[in-house]
Amino acid sequence: MADVELIEVGPRDGLQNEAAILPTADKVRLIERSVAAGLRRIEAVSFVNPKRVPQMADAEAVMERLPRPDGVRYAGLVLNRRGLDRALATGVDEVNVVVVATDEFSRRNQGCTVEEGVANWARIAADARAAGLFRTVTIAASFGCPFEGEVPAERVLDLVRRVAESEPDEIALADTIGVGVPAQVRTLLAGAAEIAPDVPLRCHFHNTRNTGYANALTALDQGVSALDASTGGFGGCPFAPAATGNIATEDLLYSLDRMGVATGVRMAPVAETAAWLSERLDSPVQALLGRAGPFPSAR
Amino acid sequence: MADVELIEVGPRDGLQNEAAILPTADKVRLIERSVAAGLRRIEAVSFVNPKRVPQMADAEAVMERLPRPDGVRYAGLVLNRRGLDRALATGVDEVNVVVVATDEFSRRNQGCTVEEGVANWARIAADARAAGLFRTVTIAASFGCPFEGEVPAERVLDLVRRVAESEPDEIALADTIGVGVPAQVRTLLAGAAEIAPDVPLRCHFHNTRNTGYANALTALDQGVSALDASTGGFGGCPFAPAATGNIATEDLLYSLDRMGVATGVRMAPVAETAAWLSERLDSPVQALLGRAGPFPSAR
Repeated sequence: MADVELIEVGPRDGLQNEAAILPTADKVRLIERSVAAGLRRIEAVSFVNPKRVPQMADAEAVMERLPRPDGVRYAGLVLNRRGLDRALATGVDEVNVVVVATDEFSRRNQGCTVEEGVANWARIAADARAAGLFRTVTIAASFGCPFEGEVPAERVLDLVRRVAESEPDEIALADTIGVGVPAQVRTLLAGAAEIAPDVPLRCHFHNTRNTGYANALTALDQGVSALDASTGGFGGCPFAPAATGNIATEDLLYSLDRMGVATGVRMAPVAETAAWLSERLDSPVQALLGRAGPFPSAR
Repeated sequence: MADVELIEVGPRDGLQNEAAILPTADKVRLIERSVAAGLRRIEAVSFVNPKRVPQMADAEAVMERLPRPDGVRYAGLVLNRRGLDRALATGVDEVNVVVVATDEFSRRNQGCTVEEGVANWARIAADARAAGLFRTVTIAASFGCPFEGEVPAERVLDLVRRVAESEPDEIALADTIGVGVPAQVRTLLAGAAEIAPDVPLRCHFHNTRNTGYANALTALDQGVSALDASTGGFGGCPFAPAATGNIATEDLLYSLDRMGVATGVRMAPVAETAAWLSERLDSPVQALLGRAGPFPSAR
């Protein structure tokens, strides 16, 4: 049994911000390699406008070719009804619906206000629930906004309260632009757990300012049930300036393994996949583990 | 008043692992810039064998040219009596004496066993005390050894007990090769505080495997009085394979500032110094802040 679930978001959040568009076969290979390393929840695709995110245009083709072993769940990111229809047609196990915490970022990211985003989530949630899909709602820019700056904790927690009304299976707090610090993680997770005590909490961190790993470990201390990470630390957000990579799966695993936190995921094959992916994308690995190596053995 | 002291170790630990040897005037400039940014304790030089660490060969010349404003303390790293004599002659305010936690690393780093290292510290401590110098003893490889692997906490804490007998003004625990994790930080600092309740504790972290910032913030939670950091995240250890940079002063400041932890140090000029130093060394800045920018203002 895992002490914390790791969600591999490299195929979605990792790839969508890379200049190169990975061929479908390589996306499938990336996901197969992640499954082989022990990852059991994978954000595989997003069902968004291919004109805005061309890196994800082949979502259907990716889903069609994926192996479907027992116990492995694939998620697709969904922003509207059209995306949900595509998600249903492809047979993903989970949908991840994004509500952005600030109006300006929400407008740029998905063309609606925060209020409209909450209403949108409520509609998608009802339909996805009727279809039997696992539903995650992610509150993006929970720790700060590239356009509006500070995002008060009260505003985020008010959003937690409101999105919880549509009965998500999981609420994720996302530091989309990598500005969060552990004190915020403690405040937001403690608040969210009080507001929605029956809903598992998940966190999504970027290491843009070297706070991502500290945030992830703090979230774990706060009882979070799931953490997002991206093999190699690739990724970012095409609509957020200066957003760099997600925390890297292998670097997070290094800390978790050394602290005896069980994940069921093996670090070495993840690091090997990062090196392979770096070649395929012609983009450097942001994770440090592949360079530094694991904890040294006695010689 | 600062909530935690930052010790700028870039001029010593930062520069000693760079291929380029910085001219004396640039070293002085680096330290002057650090003082101007608000840093008040600076590990400026090391008094070691210039054949082994040529980057530090001009320690006397650096010390001679440094401004000596009130409230600023300069430290020199010292490994033996000869080093102490040089330190005394140059008028440093503090000496930092290293005892390595494992025999193999101790032999390679300073040509003696752990036992000999403890005895060596005792001799230097007595002489430095007689001369009125502030005395730090650093236990290197406290979190793991590149040659022997695991370093049991009991062994480190036994060393804490033994080095404390020579009345240091400060005990530093160093993760010389960047393998430590927060659980170790908690164990070692709690143990050290019990063994030496009257001695302030300091920590030295490298971010080799993306654990350095999490470790630093955990140390702060555990009541550490001082943290080492290096402008730009330059640095490493010439005798430890795959050791990369110290945690970066500006990236650490980002977290501390956002959490309301007072340091008296300004982040922006530190990041500017990192960019300047990168040019002088022809070596990339490892810190992320200069690239990502500070927390965004409302637009």
